[in-house]
Amino acid sequence: MARIAGMDVLDIRFPTSRELDGSDAMNPDPDYSAAYVVLRTDDGPDGYGLAFTIGRGNDVQAAAIRALEPLVVGRSTPDTPAALAALSADLVGDSQLRWLGPEKGVAHMAIGAVVNAAWDLASRRANCPLWTLLAAMTPEDIVGLVDFRYLSDALTEQEALDILRDAEPGRAERAARIRASGYRAYSTSPGWLGYSDDKLVHLATQAVADGFDMIKLKVGASVEDDVRRLRLARAAVGPDVRIAVDANQRWDVAPAITWMRALAPYDPYWIEEPTSPDDVLGHRAVADAVRPIRVATGEHVQNRVVFKQLLQAGAIDVLQLDAARVGGVNENVAILLLAAKFGVPVCPHAGGVGLCELVRHLSMFDFVAVSGTDADRAIEWVDHLHEHFTDPAVVRGGRYLAPTRPGFSARIRDESLARYTYPNGPEWRDA
Amino acid sequence: MARIAGMDVLDIRFPTSRELDGSDAMNPDPDYSAAYVVLRTDDGPDGYGLAFTIGRGNDVQAAAIRALEPLVVGRSTPDTPAALAALSADLVGDSQLRWLGPEKGVAHMAIGAVVNAAWDLASRRANCPLWTLLAAMTPEDIVGLVDFRYLSDALTEQEALDILRDAEPGRAERAARIRASGYRAYSTSPGWLGYSDDKLVHLATQAVADGFDMIKLKVGASVEDDVRRLRLARAAVGPDVRIAVDANQRWDVAPAITWMRALAPYDPYWIEEPTSPDDVLGHRAVADAVRPIRVATGEHVQNRVVFKQLLQAGAIDVLQLDAARVGGVNENVAILLLAAKFGVPVCPHAGGVGLCELVRHLSMFDFVAVSGTDADRAIEWVDHLHEHFTDPAVVRGGRYLAPTRPGFSARIRDESLARYTYPNGPEWRDA
Repeated sequence: MARIAGMDVLDIRFPTSRELDGSDAMNPDPDYSAAYVVLRTDDGPDGYGLAFTIGRGNDVQAAAIRALEPLVVGRSTPDTPAALAALSADLVGDSQLRWLGPEKGVAHMAIGAVVNAAWDLASRRANCPLWTLLAAMTPEDIVGLVDFRYLSDALTEQEALDILRDAEPGRAERAARIRASGYRAYSTSPGWLGYSDDKLVHLATQAVADGFDMIKLKVGASVEDDVRRLRLARAAVGPDVRIAVDANQRWDVAPAITWMRALAPYDPYWIEEPTSPDDVLGHRAVADAVRPIRVATGEHVQNRVVFKQLLQAGAIDVLQLDAARVGGVNENVAILLLAAKFGVPVCPHAGGVGLCELVRHLSMFDFVAVSGTDADRAIEWVDHLHEHFTDPAVVRGGRYLAPTRPGFSARIRDESLARYTYPNGPEWRDA
Repeated sequence: MARIAGMDVLDIRFPTSRELDGSDAMNPDPDYSAAYVVLRTDDGPDGYGLAFTIGRGNDVQAAAIRALEPLVVGRSTPDTPAALAALSADLVGDSQLRWLGPEKGVAHMAIGAVVNAAWDLASRRANCPLWTLLAAMTPEDIVGLVDFRYLSDALTEQEALDILRDAEPGRAERAARIRASGYRAYSTSPGWLGYSDDKLVHLATQAVADGFDMIKLKVGASVEDDVRRLRLARAAVGPDVRIAVDANQRWDVAPAITWMRALAPYDPYWIEEPTSPDDVLGHRAVADAVRPIRVATGEHVQNRVVFKQLLQAGAIDVLQLDAARVGGVNENVAILLLAAKFGVPVCPHAGGVGLCELVRHLSMFDFVAVSGTDADRAIEWVDHLHEHFTDPAVVRGGRYLAPTRPGFSARIRDESLARYTYPNGPEWRDA
């Protein structure tokens, strides 16, 4: 029987702040980074996972992953749904480590990185991409992955089973559709706040020419600038392309409403992160005031308990799952089930380091085996840093292609690891 | 001008799990720990702060504090309200570190430790205990300490000013009352889940004999056990002593309600942490169902945004401020102002390592300068580990005495630091 023989944790940082890629109203100069984990086995492939951060503090994130090593190393490779559920439960349930969250922030993202690495390992050992591994499981096995603690007032195990059983009949046909034509993407690349108007218009036009029917702009630093930029973008793409806007938590409730009313003439599709990701009631107040503009959030939502409330309160119209913010695949399965129960479309957050690579698996699994629909759903696409991955996300004609290689696609190329290790890789040492 | 010349961070752990002190339904074997920070100055006293954890992961918490060093070392000692506000704002606002929360978990507790150390330093330099330093500030200076981001839909700067101005006339008289007779305490020492019935009855009886008019029992592992323990405690203390119960997040919403109905015949005063600290709507559902039993929470509430919602939703009847969970004194001033605005009594969480020492300052400040009342308020008292502090909390006749020494009372004795440093202090090395 194969075992997890060791765990390596690396602090990898890309100097993205030099080009203002990724600049927004709250994050003016991010250095996109990964606290990267390798589960080394004594037989067969290794497993790869990561937590995404934006620079400083990536060492703290790495330390939090290392703190999980005693709970992981020495275990049998988790090759079954039950073993993957047990690993997740053991990490979330450690009573002393739990105090550091519970289930939030650095400690929880560390769990997510390790759980995702375990799923990567399981998929590699099963010789299939993660989305097909998940989509081949029975409803009972999928429900068994989920920690229903704190969810039962909104979603019971029986309700989850019913959702999954309802989606069983069409699985094969939908999986074939994914293989044939992928999953819809939208592009954030035009809209970073640090870009000039000319660059914005050029990139928005290019995105539509490339097949995207939805783009996203960052907003929130200056309402005059945002009105001008949204007007320019709308003129460039025409009335039929969706334009979402993203405030990255910049506002309180009242300014969010005022600002969105100023942007409303240019038909924004959703307002993303209008305020604190912790503010369920604030999101509801914004949503009530800005309809028909949708409210979206999720990249900083800490766990399933907050998503549950956003859904219970009718505070979001779009749920932005993130592959690496919460406790990994297991918790994201819970979140997909919650979204399906409430009938809210999931449009995952991506970009960063590896988030496009990872999250496409979850949306494809959702389409095949959970919600059974892709209506009004699209995965964010940011065309940066994919060259560092061994199984990079590929978007063609505005659609994510289905991954075909075994695993969860989080593996970073060895030469990139060597170059971007912080602070001693040549990219940083020589800067 | 004095400067912060250096920052030391220590991993201090006390082996409390050996005696089951601190055992509850979610935390069966905590080793009470502190990630301890010293702000060293080049002139005059140093400043001391800590984050409380329960063992494993205290090294991660220490790493998160160390990550703040570049933002702290080299600054002038923060001797004014404006300088203390600027330090807090710089730590909370670092755009790259913010990604690790935002404002939650390990990263936010690290900010709390450093901000509290800065307040300790400021109080030592002003040669007064923290509570009197705060209580001597003008309403304008106190409001200037607060980050109103994400609060303005519930509390504006003007409303905060009005609250503080309303409390100005009686400040001197209330400060004199604090100096004369301290602040009401309640005792958790009888009620740890690992204690026998005999020990529970003995300690409950002793607490009343010692002058406490309120005690607290841990619940949540077995409803039959809890009914028996609460019955025994009620018989021991009589009908006039308040008995709170604390589930430490053990339940979902429906079991919380069922369980509390089983305990209701023994007149529990509040149910503390019935469910996830993230679940505002869940707390409201429990509160609506179990009245007149009060709902209390706070020791794991991550920041002011969640407290805001708990108050907006009417989800809590008692707010349990914690000195070391959120971003330090500045954020706790915001939380005290929110509680005053909503008219909800603050009964701080304490115990752990140093929490009694710290939080008494905040309640005394609240009484003197914010809420202006101590009605239905009491600070938790757990009689463990105080011997390790240079300015230990003292409770006599069921009341916390007013601290009189300069500072915020977080300093641990040098000999305790040496003995309990993990993993190389003699207490751990020789275990």
